[in-house]
Amino acid sequence: DYSMIRPIVIGVVGGDGIGPYICAEAKRVLEHMLQAEVSAGKVEIRDVSGLTIEERARAMKAIPAGVLDELKRCHAILKGPLTTPKKGDPWPNLESANVAMRRELDLFANVRPVKVPSQGIDWIFFRENTEGAYILGSKGLNVTDEIAFDFTVTTTQGAERIVHLAFDHAKKNGVNRVTAVTKANVIKTSDGKFLEVARKVAKDYPEIDLDEWFIDIMAAKLVDPKRRTQFRVVVLPNLYGDIITDEAAEFQGGVGTAGSANIGKRYSMFEAIHGSAPRMVEEGRAQYADPSSMMRAAAMLLGHIGFVEKARRLEMALDLCGQYERKVVLTGRADGATGAKFADYVMETLQDP
Amino acid sequence: DYSMIRPIVIGVVGGDGIGPYICAEAKRVLEHMLQAEVSAGKVEIRDVSGLTIEERARAMKAIPAGVLDELKRCHAILKGPLTTPKKGDPWPNLESANVAMRRELDLFANVRPVKVPSQGIDWIFFRENTEGAYILGSKGLNVTDEIAFDFTVTTTQGAERIVHLAFDHAKKNGVNRVTAVTKANVIKTSDGKFLEVARKVAKDYPEIDLDEWFIDIMAAKLVDPKRRTQFRVVVLPNLYGDIITDEAAEFQGGVGTAGSANIGKRYSMFEAIHGSAPRMVEEGRAQYADPSSMMRAAAMLLGHIGFVEKARRLEMALDLCGQYERKVVLTGRADGATGAKFADYVMETLQDP
Ligand SMILES: CC(C)[C@H](C(=O)O)[C@@H](O)C(=O)O
Ligand SMILES: CC(C)[C@H](C(=O)O)[C@@H](O)C(=O)O
Repeated sequence: DYSMIRPIVIGVVGGDGIGPYICAEAKRVLEHMLQAEVSAGKVEIRDVSGLTIEERARAMKAIPAGVLDELKRCHAILKGPLTTPKKGDPWPNLESANVAMRRELDLFANVRPVKVPSQGIDWIFFRENTEGAYILGSKGLNVTDEIAFDFTVTTTQGAERIVHLAFDHAKKNGVNRVTAVTKANVIKTSDGKFLEVARKVAKDYPEIDLDEWFIDIMAAKLVDPKRRTQFRVVVLPNLYGDIITDEAAEFQGGVGTAGSANIGKRYSMFEAIHGSAPRMVEEGRAQYADPSSMMRAAAMLLGHIGFVEKARRLEMALDLCGQYERKVVLTGRADGATGAKFADYVMETLQDP
Repeated sequence: DYSMIRPIVIGVVGGDGIGPYICAEAKRVLEHMLQAEVSAGKVEIRDVSGLTIEERARAMKAIPAGVLDELKRCHAILKGPLTTPKKGDPWPNLESANVAMRRELDLFANVRPVKVPSQGIDWIFFRENTEGAYILGSKGLNVTDEIAFDFTVTTTQGAERIVHLAFDHAKKNGVNRVTAVTKANVIKTSDGKFLEVARKVAKDYPEIDLDEWFIDIMAAKLVDPKRRTQFRVVVLPNLYGDIITDEAAEFQGGVGTAGSANIGKRYSMFEAIHGSAPRMVEEGRAQYADPSSMMRAAAMLLGHIGFVEKARRLEMALDLCGQYERKVVLTGRADGATGAKFADYVMETLQDP
């Protein structure tokens, strides 16, 4: 409960690539909506720096120590995409800062809603966010030059808390089924445990059915217009959540339209589900990057820290502006479909409180 | 080269659930097409038994020893789906016989074509088939009651042979790009090696570009009608191949329409990409199961053992009958849309040799 906290601190991390551009627009919208609260000292919005890929590389750490302290001083973080280096990049072994932040702040739930009302799509994904195939960061094992190992881990506690969150959400929203996605027929130990825990937790919710699917079939079912509408609340281990939510977001207009909440007991972080798109920056198109994803994230942030009505207003404005935006994009970028123009339009569209 | 072998032995494994039904129809088509060769002693088609879930459970082995010997006497195996037990089933720890067979016969390449000519879709997936997240079968590690581990492994040799196969296929078919799918930004060691090997192998094919995507983005891109047609030849580690090929098959009409070839240096096995659908059997609907997937597998088998023209004829007949079949299904099952009727229709449709 944030009503007693004063000020509620919102940290803004611009990120890499198009991150600073789209994040600045989302921040502008937040500042606009929280003007009174900021003036009254109820909310503070501050930048957190030191997390660009260059700074992380210099520190040789996914999250430099000082920055982690800064992040821990925030109640909620709005974060732009952070470039994750891979083989062949400079600093190939640097762990993903996104993954590190989720772990270091123990943000165990990655909550990703996808909605296409006209198609009957109303999904919310609860992705386990701190273990699974992501658990050890970059610390796999090259046994020899010829053999490379990685590990996947499910802990009872890790699975329990995410499954509980999904069932609690279903219960609160009157949804009578939760879908659990694993590959427990092959990846029997870790996915087997996830499924076992899901079945155990499900017993605490006698009014809600557990619906079990394998990840391969789930990826196929989402494509089928007749079958995909049967899903509402879905809970998945980390890697499957990563894959399925990107696929799912595509039906809503692509990863550029989807925000995501990373929630822990103590901290929270809100981000786009897409990457930093360095190519857009190289090609000089960064100012045209669509800030919708970051604004969706900002709306989730507002809801999380207790401004439920503001969150609803921002979401409605984004729903409306989504149509405007597509029109502008269709009629060409030359006439000013920049992220900044879009943010202006969103702010104009916000209904009166 | 099978032209010197006499007889070429084709083993048929019916499988579980709907497997024996759809496999029998595919076998009937094979026998029809190979009548002359069987009479001349050039081909032998034999059943291989002992692999039902009950038999495997009794032997407490994914592939009972005697059965493995039988399988090794076949040049090519046509295999119906085999039920894979998971947590909560009887025999939960029995390894998947599908996975075990791929490993025991060293069928390192799982080749899965998906085509929708009307939509410009012409994909062929080369799924690594013996390692990755599938490597240890059911042998994960329960460190304590609270912590469950599984392992993912990429070996240099394992990655090299599948990537080479994909590039060779591209080269032979005049395709100038091969797409490699990993999550090398997070699963840095094993997926990192897969990507590293792909880049190294790509250097042997200067006329072919390597196109790199992360699995989450790939799952999203397949949904986008404008972007998915850019893919032709795709190579993936085991688990990603499992997920992406099920999703891909959906555009072609579902997993029920897709066959798959499991190829090794010495042995080969052809199967549907779907499961045994025990529910259809329980509900008394097994005879209505669509045998298309097994017949596609049979066509791939024919091509593999050297009957390229017969393979082409069967594929064409299946393309034509696909439309008939949909019509029958739409007009209801009561008037006889059984797998057997469908097989009759396919055989009538086969063009003269
Ligand atoms: C950038 C990457 C590390 C990240 C992930 O895999 O989790 C992203 O794909 C996401 O889904 O947030
Ligand atoms: C049944 C299962 C073990 C198998 C797999 O995961 O490989 C199936 O999904 C497939 O794709 O052939």
